[in-house]
Amino acid sequence: MSQDLAQLVTSIAQRARAASFELATTPTATRNAALAKLAELLPASAEAILAANQKDLADAKANGLSTAQIDRLTLTPARLEQLAEGVRQVQALPDPLGEELEQTTRPNGLNLRKVRVPIGVIGIIYEARPNVTIDCAILTLKSGNAAVLRGGKESFHTNMALAAIIQQALAASGVPADAVQLIPTTDRAALNVLLKLDTLIHALIPRGGESLIRFVAENSRIPVIKHYNGVCFVYVDRAGDIAMAERIIVNAKCQRPGVCNAAEQLLLHAAIADEALPRLARALIAAKNVQLRCDAASQAILAKAGLPATAASEADYKTEFLDYILAVRVVGSLEEAITTINRDSSGHSEAIITADETAARRFFAAIDSSAVFWNASTRFNDGFEFGLGAEIGISTDRLHARGPVGLKELCSYKWLVTGNGQVRS
Amino acid sequence: MSQDLAQLVTSIAQRARAASFELATTPTATRNAALAKLAELLPASAEAILAANQKDLADAKANGLSTAQIDRLTLTPARLEQLAEGVRQVQALPDPLGEELEQTTRPNGLNLRKVRVPIGVIGIIYEARPNVTIDCAILTLKSGNAAVLRGGKESFHTNMALAAIIQQALAASGVPADAVQLIPTTDRAALNVLLKLDTLIHALIPRGGESLIRFVAENSRIPVIKHYNGVCFVYVDRAGDIAMAERIIVNAKCQRPGVCNAAEQLLLHAAIADEALPRLARALIAAKNVQLRCDAASQAILAKAGLPATAASEADYKTEFLDYILAVRVVGSLEEAITTINRDSSGHSEAIITADETAARRFFAAIDSSAVFWNASTRFNDGFEFGLGAEIGISTDRLHARGPVGLKELCSYKWLVTGNGQVRS
Repeated sequence: MSQDLAQLVTSIAQRARAASFELATTPTATRNAALAKLAELLPASAEAILAANQKDLADAKANGLSTAQIDRLTLTPARLEQLAEGVRQVQALPDPLGEELEQTTRPNGLNLRKVRVPIGVIGIIYEARPNVTIDCAILTLKSGNAAVLRGGKESFHTNMALAAIIQQALAASGVPADAVQLIPTTDRAALNVLLKLDTLIHALIPRGGESLIRFVAENSRIPVIKHYNGVCFVYVDRAGDIAMAERIIVNAKCQRPGVCNAAEQLLLHAAIADEALPRLARALIAAKNVQLRCDAASQAILAKAGLPATAASEADYKTEFLDYILAVRVVGSLEEAITTINRDSSGHSEAIITADETAARRFFAAIDSSAVFWNASTRFNDGFEFGLGAEIGISTDRLHARGPVGLKELCSYKWLVTGNGQVRS
Repeated sequence: MSQDLAQLVTSIAQRARAASFELATTPTATRNAALAKLAELLPASAEAILAANQKDLADAKANGLSTAQIDRLTLTPARLEQLAEGVRQVQALPDPLGEELEQTTRPNGLNLRKVRVPIGVIGIIYEARPNVTIDCAILTLKSGNAAVLRGGKESFHTNMALAAIIQQALAASGVPADAVQLIPTTDRAALNVLLKLDTLIHALIPRGGESLIRFVAENSRIPVIKHYNGVCFVYVDRAGDIAMAERIIVNAKCQRPGVCNAAEQLLLHAAIADEALPRLARALIAAKNVQLRCDAASQAILAKAGLPATAASEADYKTEFLDYILAVRVVGSLEEAITTINRDSSGHSEAIITADETAARRFFAAIDSSAVFWNASTRFNDGFEFGLGAEIGISTDRLHARGPVGLKELCSYKWLVTGNGQVRS
């Protein structure tokens, strides 16, 4: 690795850290003014952005990227307008900073206030989609954090153009320009430098596939806010409403199979499996020709009903298919469902379908996942759906944020203690 | 490393993980009953504990440990009674689990509750003092976490005896015995195994010197709750009451110099340094013959007053002395004090002495540390002093806990979502 590259990345992080001190005390109005300016500049700068995007698209075609990949990479005037609308929505959200989380006066007269403050400097490492550059920049800016962005090489020219627009919006609003910086190279070695800067960068957020996230987590001592994957379960209890189960499993599996909160596994209580499974299978096949990968009990039920069923491998029970494929098992009891989920799920999102409140309460208490649903689709584990206004991702960690990571989860806190000369005895 | 050792440590962590699922749904009364039983057993089992302690003390003397180290290692009937009283105090604290942190109903009728739950399995790595075995066991148990304890070799026999008593208390109360386990070997290789078990252990808390903490943080991907050290500042502003400054700096430096929230650095505004510094220096010398390591300006003031002053090295400005030594600098402004602290402190505890509310508010806003004090001693950054009831340590991290780590900070949360068949569109 070149010494120049190490210096470049380190200097970016140092300037981000310096900016973070200033950002932490920037008034709400200043940060919002920068967001307003950015919303204005995005459509106004369409020509430059789309020209840069054309370069990336030409490279993408030359490199044989898939149609889906090229679609994700493509910006249009309409998509820029959508991005601008997203910026305005974040601008309109309440400022998370400065909120008093606790307040108390101790017997010795010390007054304690626990107040929300930014984390500091956040490194964001992502793959091809250029809209992530804007999404991440605006959420970190709104929450008073400095951001060091490391985008994918496929969207490099577009990201550089977007970063220039962001810098313009910052400069026009009195926010330090170093508050949002993009690493201006596609050299993989730059990422390795970034991951080692644990005295300058306080948190990392990798956004992309599981291999990217694992690479980041395994190669850095900086705390990572993340989920590796989403092996999400829907369990239909013996007291489950089968019509409701049908709607929910079709939604959880088929509405958007490529995302982390889509269902990958269906468990059915043995008492209702004979009745429920053929109906659920027919609905899943009708919706998206979903392939069912079954244990022996569920395979027998489907065979008897004349429905297609593949035998599952052991690996299928822990796989995030991200496709129209669903693993299916029959369980003997609620407790078996709980044990199975806590063993095989990724702790992301699990649902129970039941009319039995006692069963639902037990499921709520015992399931060890970021979000647990009773009679609702796993697809709702999402910052917008939870009312957080926006999200930068979903966490399956247990420290700090768990579930959707919105503006508040991009913050830390500190204790402010006021006395009149107290000393400790 | 022997295969047996790896299997032993892995098996302990696996059993802890299994116990953690059960613990998470254990009623408050059950966990409190185990604590009550432990408080009863500690003095009742004095004979066995003190016999084990004698073995450690004999080893300590043979190995030439210092008097202070031997004192920290020593248990007596009175100290066992103190430990039992500590257990009863934790038993009396409110249960942190199950508290509803947020509650909302979305426009689509979904009801969301964010509730506090245990983190899961916590690994605690500590050095010589055997009381840490009890302190850590009771805080993790109260917060519903399973604990894997790795104590220092100096207190090995005592720790084993205490762990046996803890297991007895668990077994008598219906808490899974694997909820608290001690690694029953002094082999250093066991620690290296433990640090790699990131699928079984959810958080690490190292307690001890900076080198232990760095070793843990640098050799594990498990999130660590920690502070490396406490380079804490007291800044006497131009509007500072000098009598108050004297009381506070003497307390912050001298009351217990070996702890992380003791002051290591004194900053004085140039406008009051001539008057304040000689008086503060006399008080510090009178109290504990504190050695002052000075910049040129403060050295000149002290020389003029006929007081001893050593020239500081650059390293002194970032050093945790843990001794009766204090670095001293004169600054030209509040802003210079803020910049100096944010550059050189360890983000632990900083104090401003001032009668100027505007200056104090600016200090509160700009200082980037876990606790910021206005007219009070840095020594108050402590779980008991903050009213948290107890603490397992103090964190200078920005994710999860910052400042004292009490029962609530030993918890995570999850989202419980109740619907009536909602699907996402």
